[in-house]
Amino acid sequence: MNCIDRLIENTIKTKNPTVVGLDPDIIKIPACYKNQAAVSEHPLAKVADVILDFNRDIIDTVCDLVPAIKPQIAFYEKYGSYGVAAFEKTVEYAKTKGLVLIEDAKRGDIGNTAKAYADAHLGEVETLDGSYAKSFDADFLTVNPYLGSESLKPFVDVCRGFGKGIFVLVKTSNISSGEIQDVVTKDGKSISQFIAEYVNTQAHASVGRYGYSSIGAVVGATYPEEAVELRKSMPHSYFLVPGYGAQGGEADDILPCFNSDGLGAIINSSRGILFTHMNDIERNNCCKEIYLKSVRQAVISMRNDIYHTLKNSFANMLY
Amino acid sequence: MNCIDRLIENTIKTKNPTVVGLDPDIIKIPACYKNQAAVSEHPLAKVADVILDFNRDIIDTVCDLVPAIKPQIAFYEKYGSYGVAAFEKTVEYAKTKGLVLIEDAKRGDIGNTAKAYADAHLGEVETLDGSYAKSFDADFLTVNPYLGSESLKPFVDVCRGFGKGIFVLVKTSNISSGEIQDVVTKDGKSISQFIAEYVNTQAHASVGRYGYSSIGAVVGATYPEEAVELRKSMPHSYFLVPGYGAQGGEADDILPCFNSDGLGAIINSSRGILFTHMNDIERNNCCKEIYLKSVRQAVISMRNDIYHTLKNSFANMLY
Repeated sequence: MNCIDRLIENTIKTKNPTVVGLDPDIIKIPACYKNQAAVSEHPLAKVADVILDFNRDIIDTVCDLVPAIKPQIAFYEKYGSYGVAAFEKTVEYAKTKGLVLIEDAKRGDIGNTAKAYADAHLGEVETLDGSYAKSFDADFLTVNPYLGSESLKPFVDVCRGFGKGIFVLVKTSNISSGEIQDVVTKDGKSISQFIAEYVNTQAHASVGRYGYSSIGAVVGATYPEEAVELRKSMPHSYFLVPGYGAQGGEADDILPCFNSDGLGAIINSSRGILFTHMNDIERNNCCKEIYLKSVRQAVISMRNDIYHTLKNSFANMLY
Repeated sequence: MNCIDRLIENTIKTKNPTVVGLDPDIIKIPACYKNQAAVSEHPLAKVADVILDFNRDIIDTVCDLVPAIKPQIAFYEKYGSYGVAAFEKTVEYAKTKGLVLIEDAKRGDIGNTAKAYADAHLGEVETLDGSYAKSFDADFLTVNPYLGSESLKPFVDVCRGFGKGIFVLVKTSNISSGEIQDVVTKDGKSISQFIAEYVNTQAHASVGRYGYSSIGAVVGATYPEEAVELRKSMPHSYFLVPGYGAQGGEADDILPCFNSDGLGAIINSSRGILFTHMNDIERNNCCKEIYLKSVRQAVISMRNDIYHTLKNSFANMLY
């Protein structure tokens, strides 16, 4: 099944259009994970061991509640190839639990380099005997469009070939996103709108059983007015929505990202789910059971907050 | 010594303002490297072994001729954590040979995620016992500015702290680069110019002994007219210049990227040095010695081509 349909079916099943951002900041991971006996020797490998142990527990804790998880690869790359190996094992483990895997890597390059990234993260790569193997094998990847449409094409092609998906950065949640993304072109369109049109053209060509495409967009919860326009420009695209919670976006702010079927968007929270529901002292003085219970409660609160907001707004929600 | 001063001293010593792009495309690597007995078991690890073997030979072959090498991480990420480990060992090996290491990764993200990338690739990362360790430890990193100046700041800060450098994507060499980068803002400046101004402001704050800063820009050889303007906008910034050779840029096209001291730019060639000087049949039917001799000749030809062009244009070249 195409990734977008799997994402939607998981969303309907869990009645939850949210995703847990798996950004394992080692400074914030509770002490109970860090105080365990080390298996690996290398200092970076030791951190990677802790990250993987932490991630498996988080995945076990949330896998019946959310449709997907979104690891941010920067927090794994920090620990070099050891960290990247922990990332790969996290992807593998999440998939055994039925979760859709959204890799947040914001890759972008030209020609055969863009193709190398697409093959690595979504497709398959050549090996020495001429056969092909999967490398990261994420379901979705975030992609940076700064190099133009030509740089997005290899990702779109690999998505088509392997039933995978991308979220192109259209309007990001951060304060300075407007410096480039809000600049208006000669045609009176913003850069965001220009990219949205490209995304929409590609999305139209591959719509799944629920009317949505695997070619989606990142649209920040912190810019609800832009989201209204972008929703109109990309009716078939799913939005990956950062900025809820820790970055200041609230449930009402994410409403414009949805269509009236209650679909079309998946809202991310990372720090809000993993860390900020406990203060530093609490996190470092509790056992794993207490910590994970608190994580589970944070996921349920976010789901309830968003689900009720959608139910109150859309009479014809699909779930 | 600051990375930019090391890059310049290497350039003066080799009389060569070019960099070899180390993009080990396994399909194009000569058969003599691929036909060796495999050490590793995993199919992706086998490819990584070949890449590392190939890279070490290339580095040995070019290290007395060029100031720097520029591995493109996409070609390593292709093979997951095995490929990333080969990347790390390539970085390490290149440094033992005195080469400056420019990592082409085009990373870009916000807040603590951007910091995670900067720490990983240029700075140092926290370990479990509270001490810090180096991860990738590149000298320079390419950075994508689509998320705005706020997203560049963590990279600039890490550069200052560790004597490292960045090349911000200002005007890339590809055909569709203009779709976003050439769009003109309300102030009558293009997006490229806007980013150039940010780069210039940061560059001013940290100029080394030759008058150049570690905060540089990527400016494609395929847009010489834009390069003239960008050179004026960023007098203290080094330009990393892709697009020479395989992408169509010629020696005259890269002239505007230099200042009259013959410094200010470093010209990259990847495929032209590694692969296109031999056709597929030649590459797959020669021994390592013949192949590497041909690589060395390609590096010398490129150096001569560019060095003579500079000498003919600038009376006061520093080298």
